[in-house]
Amino acid sequence: MRYPSGTKSNQSDKHLPSSKTNDTYSNRGMSLEEDIHQTNQFYLETNKAVIHKKPTPIQIVKVHYPKRSAAVITEGYFQAKSTTDFNGLYRSKHIDFEAKETKNKTLFPLANIHEHQFIHMQSILNHGGICFFIIRFTVFDEIYFVPAKIVLSYWELMKLDGRKSIPYDVIQSEGYLIPFKYQIRVDYLKIVDQLYF
Amino acid sequence: MRYPSGTKSNQSDKHLPSSKTNDTYSNRGMSLEEDIHQTNQFYLETNKAVIHKKPTPIQIVKVHYPKRSAAVITEGYFQAKSTTDFNGLYRSKHIDFEAKETKNKTLFPLANIHEHQFIHMQSILNHGGICFFIIRFTVFDEIYFVPAKIVLSYWELMKLDGRKSIPYDVIQSEGYLIPFKYQIRVDYLKIVDQLYF
Repeated sequence: MRYPSGTKSNQSDKHLPSSKTNDTYSNRGMSLEEDIHQTNQFYLETNKAVIHKKPTPIQIVKVHYPKRSAAVITEGYFQAKSTTDFNGLYRSKHIDFEAKETKNKTLFPLANIHEHQFIHMQSILNHGGICFFIIRFTVFDEIYFVPAKIVLSYWELMKLDGRKSIPYDVIQSEGYLIPFKYQIRVDYLKIVDQLYF
Repeated sequence: MRYPSGTKSNQSDKHLPSSKTNDTYSNRGMSLEEDIHQTNQFYLETNKAVIHKKPTPIQIVKVHYPKRSAAVITEGYFQAKSTTDFNGLYRSKHIDFEAKETKNKTLFPLANIHEHQFIHMQSILNHGGICFFIIRFTVFDEIYFVPAKIVLSYWELMKLDGRKSIPYDVIQSEGYLIPFKYQIRVDYLKIVDQLYF
């Protein structure tokens, strides 16, 4: 894995025995999304950044309006996202990112990322925003900051040779490990500071 | 009304007779939100900006998974928004705004804007974003660009003396009229260009 300062980690300890991993991260029991939500709340409360998750788009078909209580949606459908999960503002820069977890040990699959989302990420870069993925490999309990341009270069390959994933090794060498902290669970802005400012 | 260039409009024609207004704007039949959506689509397709409406946040309580068809939400509730309706990226700047229509002729009511949203707007300004309201007075068929700092100053007054609105006259003098065009129905980025770049 590569650190933003450019130093390489000691490759020999890249796969810690699971017992040791458990000592460090055990009983977290939270999804990546929840960890990022807590991190964003911390950023908001400490006035560091304004970053929110976008709500899931839902097509509302039927709504029931009972007397004396709140409207109830009784028929709705999940819609495909055309953008990323999270966006906001940090140090006057627009921040845009997607968070994904995978149980895979050797690759990060691109199959469940819609074409609209790749196009959106390219637009964000073109218009001067900061765009990246936060990818958690649940088996290793490692969370990586992966700049969008790396994901987009694999999307280009996908169109050429049909491959639908990024190898774990590439994410390890081209991405940046985000250390887990109790107070700021996924402190991704630390990497943003080092890469973009 | 004030134009971004600083020139004042001819105050004598500020309330056109409704017949003339109808000649100009008749049969539009679309909500402000739909007009802004079309404008944003135009900005996206012409590669001018990347600005999207945030989906309405919905609390999902029950989901039914029928065989061989899409998941159906059978119980859901509308949640209060804690941010603004629209955000995105333009000329490397973060853009954040709320769109509201009113049938009132003399004031814009602030009662249906949540405290969270005012706080959010203040944060966007503090972190270097561009933040504003787009307000349509349906009776006059006028759409104004109102910088967030004006709305926030009325929010401060609201806390002091309990007033819950901004007078129409203030919006006319401190805001910027957005002319209606057929192709770009609410061309608010033209005002952004003139005010912020």
